[in-house]
Amino acid sequence: MGGLAATPQPPYFAVIFASTTTEDTAGYAEAADRMIELAASVPGFLGVDSARDAEVGITVSYWESEDAIARWKADAEHTVVRESGRTRWYSAYELRVARVERAYGFTRSPVDPRSCSTETT
Amino acid sequence: MGGLAATPQPPYFAVIFASTTTEDTAGYAEAADRMIELAASVPGFLGVDSARDAEVGITVSYWESEDAIARWKADAEHTVVRESGRTRWYSAYELRVARVERAYGFTRSPVDPRSCSTETT
Repeated sequence: MGGLAATPQPPYFAVIFASTTTEDTAGYAEAADRMIELAASVPGFLGVDSARDAEVGITVSYWESEDAIARWKADAEHTVVRESGRTRWYSAYELRVARVERAYGFTRSPVDPRSCSTETT
Repeated sequence: MGGLAATPQPPYFAVIFASTTTEDTAGYAEAADRMIELAASVPGFLGVDSARDAEVGITVSYWESEDAIARWKADAEHTVVRESGRTRWYSAYELRVARVERAYGFTRSPVDPRSCSTETT
């Protein structure tokens, strides 16, 4: 991916997916990459941030509208992979749909470490 | 921490903090742990999920209200550490404040891999 998602000014929506995995993670990484590729093809997709360590994985995807999230949820391939998630890979997950109200960003410049701080409300 | 944050029924608020770090991460892990400890002591704190891999870190903290988020933002020690974050540790970050509208959870049981799926709206 290279860096963080670049999203437009709020409001927009975020799907926050936090999970822990079982010991059977065969096929998981490939499926996760494929899901991000697939999500990116859905109209209204704005971007995604994802991180996973030994204990927890968090993927936050950003969407223009609730309708866009509904389109993503209804995607046939996504539906099949969600089922694999529940039966094989995940020991637990929590999915939250949230409306982003405001956002603040910071990007370090090579010259001035404090530059490019932005705030939107 | 052990597992994922257990949050009440929505609505509540989420602060989604996604970051990339510089090569100077001395002191970072200790400060991050301390910030979670400190956040947990703020009235209105509901929980936190955090994951960091080689590229990206995501911490999502959950809050009862915007007032609780404001209290956390105003905490003096938090303010000092945010400054270290900008000057030393982070190459970029994006902080989003969002209102959680609905949540779906899944926890695998030792017996039935599909049990305990819950949905709240």
